[in-house]
Amino acid sequence: MTWKLTRTAINNEELLTNESLFAIGNGYIGVRGNFEEGYGEGMTSIRGTYINAFHDETGIEYGEKLHGFPETQQKLLNVIDAQTVELYLDGERFSLFDGEVLNYEQSLHFDRGFSERIVDWRSPKGKEVRLHIRRLTSFVTKELFAIDYRIEALNDVKEVKIITTVNGDVTNFVDPNDPRVASGHAKRLNVLDAKHENCTSIVQNETYESGLKVACTSTTQLADQTEPEAEVAQGEVKETYTASLESAVQFTKKSIYTDTLRHGDRTAENGAELLTEVSDQSFDDLLAEQKDYLDSFWSTTDIQIDGDSDLQEGIRFNLFHLLQSAGKDSVSNIAAKGLSGEGYEGHYFWDTEIYMFPVFLMSNPDLAKNLLLHRYSLLDAAKERAREVGHTKGALFPWRTITGTECSAFFPAGTAQYHISADIAYSYIQYYLVTKDEAFLREYGAEVLFETARLWLDTGHFYNGQFRIDDVTGPDEYTCIVNNNYYTNAMAKNNLVWAVKAYELAGDAAGCGVTAGEAAEWAEAAETMYLPYDEELGIHAQDDTFLQKKVWDLENTPKEKFPLLLNYHPLTLYRYQVCKQADTILAHFLLGEEDEDVVRRSYDYYEKVTTHDSSLSYCVFSIMASKLGYDEKAYNYFNKTARLDLDNTHGNTKDGLHMANMGGTWLAIVYGFAGLRVKESGISFSPTLPEQWNRLAFSIQYQGRVISVTLEKARVTYTLKSGAALTIKHGNNDVSLTEQEAVTEEI
Amino acid sequence: MTWKLTRTAINNEELLTNESLFAIGNGYIGVRGNFEEGYGEGMTSIRGTYINAFHDETGIEYGEKLHGFPETQQKLLNVIDAQTVELYLDGERFSLFDGEVLNYEQSLHFDRGFSERIVDWRSPKGKEVRLHIRRLTSFVTKELFAIDYRIEALNDVKEVKIITTVNGDVTNFVDPNDPRVASGHAKRLNVLDAKHENCTSIVQNETYESGLKVACTSTTQLADQTEPEAEVAQGEVKETYTASLESAVQFTKKSIYTDTLRHGDRTAENGAELLTEVSDQSFDDLLAEQKDYLDSFWSTTDIQIDGDSDLQEGIRFNLFHLLQSAGKDSVSNIAAKGLSGEGYEGHYFWDTEIYMFPVFLMSNPDLAKNLLLHRYSLLDAAKERAREVGHTKGALFPWRTITGTECSAFFPAGTAQYHISADIAYSYIQYYLVTKDEAFLREYGAEVLFETARLWLDTGHFYNGQFRIDDVTGPDEYTCIVNNNYYTNAMAKNNLVWAVKAYELAGDAAGCGVTAGEAAEWAEAAETMYLPYDEELGIHAQDDTFLQKKVWDLENTPKEKFPLLLNYHPLTLYRYQVCKQADTILAHFLLGEEDEDVVRRSYDYYEKVTTHDSSLSYCVFSIMASKLGYDEKAYNYFNKTARLDLDNTHGNTKDGLHMANMGGTWLAIVYGFAGLRVKESGISFSPTLPEQWNRLAFSIQYQGRVISVTLEKARVTYTLKSGAALTIKHGNNDVSLTEQEAVTEEI
Repeated sequence: MTWKLTRTAINNEELLTNESLFAIGNGYIGVRGNFEEGYGEGMTSIRGTYINAFHDETGIEYGEKLHGFPETQQKLLNVIDAQTVELYLDGERFSLFDGEVLNYEQSLHFDRGFSERIVDWRSPKGKEVRLHIRRLTSFVTKELFAIDYRIEALNDVKEVKIITTVNGDVTNFVDPNDPRVASGHAKRLNVLDAKHENCTSIVQNETYESGLKVACTSTTQLADQTEPEAEVAQGEVKETYTASLESAVQFTKKSIYTDTLRHGDRTAENGAELLTEVSDQSFDDLLAEQKDYLDSFWSTTDIQIDGDSDLQEGIRFNLFHLLQSAGKDSVSNIAAKGLSGEGYEGHYFWDTEIYMFPVFLMSNPDLAKNLLLHRYSLLDAAKERAREVGHTKGALFPWRTITGTECSAFFPAGTAQYHISADIAYSYIQYYLVTKDEAFLREYGAEVLFETARLWLDTGHFYNGQFRIDDVTGPDEYTCIVNNNYYTNAMAKNNLVWAVKAYELAGDAAGCGVTAGEAAEWAEAAETMYLPYDEELGIHAQDDTFLQKKVWDLENTPKEKFPLLLNYHPLTLYRYQVCKQADTILAHFLLGEEDEDVVRRSYDYYEKVTTHDSSLSYCVFSIMASKLGYDEKAYNYFNKTARLDLDNTHGNTKDGLHMANMGGTWLAIVYGFAGLRVKESGISFSPTLPEQWNRLAFSIQYQGRVISVTLEKARVTYTLKSGAALTIKHGNNDVSLTEQEAVTEEI
Repeated sequence: MTWKLTRTAINNEELLTNESLFAIGNGYIGVRGNFEEGYGEGMTSIRGTYINAFHDETGIEYGEKLHGFPETQQKLLNVIDAQTVELYLDGERFSLFDGEVLNYEQSLHFDRGFSERIVDWRSPKGKEVRLHIRRLTSFVTKELFAIDYRIEALNDVKEVKIITTVNGDVTNFVDPNDPRVASGHAKRLNVLDAKHENCTSIVQNETYESGLKVACTSTTQLADQTEPEAEVAQGEVKETYTASLESAVQFTKKSIYTDTLRHGDRTAENGAELLTEVSDQSFDDLLAEQKDYLDSFWSTTDIQIDGDSDLQEGIRFNLFHLLQSAGKDSVSNIAAKGLSGEGYEGHYFWDTEIYMFPVFLMSNPDLAKNLLLHRYSLLDAAKERAREVGHTKGALFPWRTITGTECSAFFPAGTAQYHISADIAYSYIQYYLVTKDEAFLREYGAEVLFETARLWLDTGHFYNGQFRIDDVTGPDEYTCIVNNNYYTNAMAKNNLVWAVKAYELAGDAAGCGVTAGEAAEWAEAAETMYLPYDEELGIHAQDDTFLQKKVWDLENTPKEKFPLLLNYHPLTLYRYQVCKQADTILAHFLLGEEDEDVVRRSYDYYEKVTTHDSSLSYCVFSIMASKLGYDEKAYNYFNKTARLDLDNTHGNTKDGLHMANMGGTWLAIVYGFAGLRVKESGISFSPTLPEQWNRLAFSIQYQGRVISVTLEKARVTYTLKSGAALTIKHGNNDVSLTEQEAVTEEI
């Protein structure tokens, strides 16, 4: 039962949240779990279909605009709606909010990649039907969104009228009660074309500003195909079918989405061709393909938890949505909310590199590689951004973006987060460590490492023999524009060290004009990097003055004042020792260079001043609690990450799923409970099994090998499933693994 | 010749600048020096009439809006235009940009309070006339704007047609080449009424949002009064007169401006009444009144410089415009550009208290008192603002405002400038020192001191025995959101010290609930106030880490990159030791508590890293150069302040005059060259006369006395013009002054 998410009742309060939870996607398109037939009058739904990276641009308004503030914003668009299917049973419209729902089951299948609803419904006049509605976005034909209906009469229903529509007259979500959602920016698509020909509905839209086009080419295949009545009005194409319900009626609606970013000028033509290609595939055929794809995915990615089905559900749910969200082509990445909602405007953040990339790196390195290639494609824009801001050299990656331009309109918690450039460098380093792919390092990684290293040299400066970096913001946005943020400096140091290593390995293969002298400067900056440390507390300070500030009185802050950023002016937050999320201890996790004593004191200190107002916080605290033997904390924090969206604990799942947190769940298991670390010298584990569980099993890939890890009460079993023999560390001990031989160690 | 500003030719490039320079005003209304008859086709003019504090509100747009960001902006409005007078000479329209200008003289008279143009003009068809056009805004009837024409035929011109208009269809200035000036915010006035009755043009407007009304009631009086033809269209009332030009024609157009802020609901009625009241006064009568007022003003305010007529012109020009700009009623203050242009939206800043208030305090204490009363009226709003930002007590004055609400849309260089609250407190302290007005201190000053002291206690905190203030921005906006800005901490300390003194003197007379315990806390914070000091350099650091940053390479920064804030991202500026304006040394000037050695090193150090991109910088450097005996620097900086607008050295005088800099000119003379300081123990002078000058003379008022000071080569003469005998300091020596007896000392 832990391969699916299920609801057996309609709860009006949870409708919007469920739309996010039951979203389907394949990294290219994403469709929220809206009801095909619509809702009751006056009810709100965030009806959404998104294409990764398909966006429009709008001007950013500033009360006071200073030099280098971005002028345009990018916004993921809700594109043409092909979800709608209305049914009329002997003239009565089917709606879950009319008549009576006799039986209901809605499921999202993680193992098979589709969602379904099975509904027994009695109309106001007493007609009874059973509906079985399934939908998927294909992992094989990424442009395809298919919906399958089976309608069966349960008493004397004679006829069903089916209206399926493709609607180009769409907007992004506007909350009529929230004046901050300017309706002027909600509608960003013009309908270029809407027509019905050859049993096909075709709608083509174009954005207002970015010049991108999207086409939806859709056909509905009934078992007993009859030519539908078609109607075109206001950008919407409507097909009407009528069928006898003497026996069950089945039909499949297949919609192909094509866009300028992937299909160039031939969006409409490509749509028609692709629709023809899939025309012979039944829904069951599509399901079979889907299953094959997912079998392969789960074979390397699944995590099995024995002892807690809620958490088992949570981790699989999260991993499935990660797969659904990850861009798999050259123009897309993973948005903060994936393709499940409109929060954060479909932008890509550091979330990818620090929270999600590692999951793919250790389980699906090809998907991980694609994320790196996409980021690499933004390198020129990052160099340009560095010049805009005033740097004479280097690359400054934007805090939030789709195409590479900075889209953050608030620089103290946006552009000032220079750490994103080190985070991106970190992902290239990790990729190299895990794959040993030297060719990739030469061709792509080196250039990223060099240009980010240059940024650090141009940003920081030597002072009293130390390299210092002033006026940046670390991950914890409750303190902004500080000097020598520990996280930033430590990550920059790692960035610099690896730029030097890449230079030693590859020279200036990337053609960046790096000289030995420049590399020596990087080495010197790395070596003398200032890492603020408080002797008295024995911990690293979050920044130069963090520990000298007042401590926020969290205990006496009323519950309704959280998250603090919605209730206090930033200046007030900046004046206190209070953290939105892990900052210093995140550095301790990622770099693992500090003594355990320091890390323990750091954890103990920062935990007390952290609100976890960011969903990126729990997983890091869970991982580091595992490392320090704080088993109960590790388990409790893990719980919070694993079910954050399922239980809507942040209250905003309706705007989309918290993708980084979903990656964090995996991290909390593999880096946390199992204690994986990847170093130049190899990989190591320090496993602990939560006492609430009987068994935990997963596998990772490492330098062409697959290694399975199974934790049981008091023991762990390592098995080299494939690949060459190697020695790993179990705690401080070497463990030699040879293919297919299980090695069991005590824990 | 140094009592007026004169132009004897039309220079098209300087038209907009001259509109600001020749602006007239009285603190209530201000009218730019536009040409009554208009300009040539396609020419730009910023045609403006402003009423101090008369504003509308508009929403502020943010790309990302955080808690406590102000939601509405205030904007000084260009109100009903009564400037226009068109002339047709035997059918040919008079324009300086048609025909031929035979003679031209435009003057602004500082001593008599009016501006004039004398023009000999030949029309395209050869008709020649002499025009004498004078205008004033009355200091006696503040609502009155009068224009007087005398038209004389120089050859055979038979007839003149005169069209005078009052136009309510007005907008603020929009630069069609600057997309940042949103036209949506330019038009903020609806015409409520436009009519002509009883030989009077009446136009009444209302703002879109703030609900303020303004009326202009205007009549034109010809010597041989004939009923004009009147026409009303699109909010404009047009009167047409025709007169024979056999002898000269003279007429006076009197326009009365009334508004809701001063005249309540009776704007129109008050306008009519006031117009009746002045109906018998000829323009010469008005000039006579005006002269009386100005004689009185100059008797206490004039500064005489013998030896440099350009600087003499500069200082009088500046003082005259200060008088024209200063609000003299309970709802207005002095806007950053006075009433001479639309820059800074007519907002009030710290400019008033630190740069302009002292001029009035030492010369016209009643005007100074009114400025304090106006600021006092904003105290409740400042308390509310403190709560919005998150303070549990105290008053946080807005960085820029008209009615007391924060209008800054960029908090790092806006709301974060907490020092404005200490600056305001400082002005109350200075007022007390100069007037010894205890009653005023009890009734108004104490409350301001108490509520600002409370702000500091709630903002800062005790750490290791020191009181520290984190995350504020000092006057130098090239470094924002810093800890322990020296200026802020030093001014806050002064604020706290005086709050304690006020409590000792007046107890809780203000009814703020201050207790002895609270006052003791203030005293402790003051006593332990942390003032960053660099032992190695022997200077106070601008903030905790300023001196650890990179030094900006000013020498190798291209000229076109200044001002830096228009060419570099704020983060880049923040990372360097580079100052827009005086910061630490401004504190040294205002508080005068440091050893001269420290001040000298400080001056030497900070001068090297200061760009003076702000017009508020030069005067402070001039004053402190005088103090330190850097005579040439003192003189050069003074030159830059005295003629900043006259020579348009900042390139933006078209948007209005730099009022604070104008006050700074006076400060540079009185506090700079003459070395005045006002302490609890009394006043002192340390005079030095620039070697370029023969003589410098001015007077000040001090505790009911008038003291004149005359510097000549190698000597200074102090004369107690009126008031009780007193002892002042000349350098370190006591000098006793008795009425009407001149005392001369060597310098």
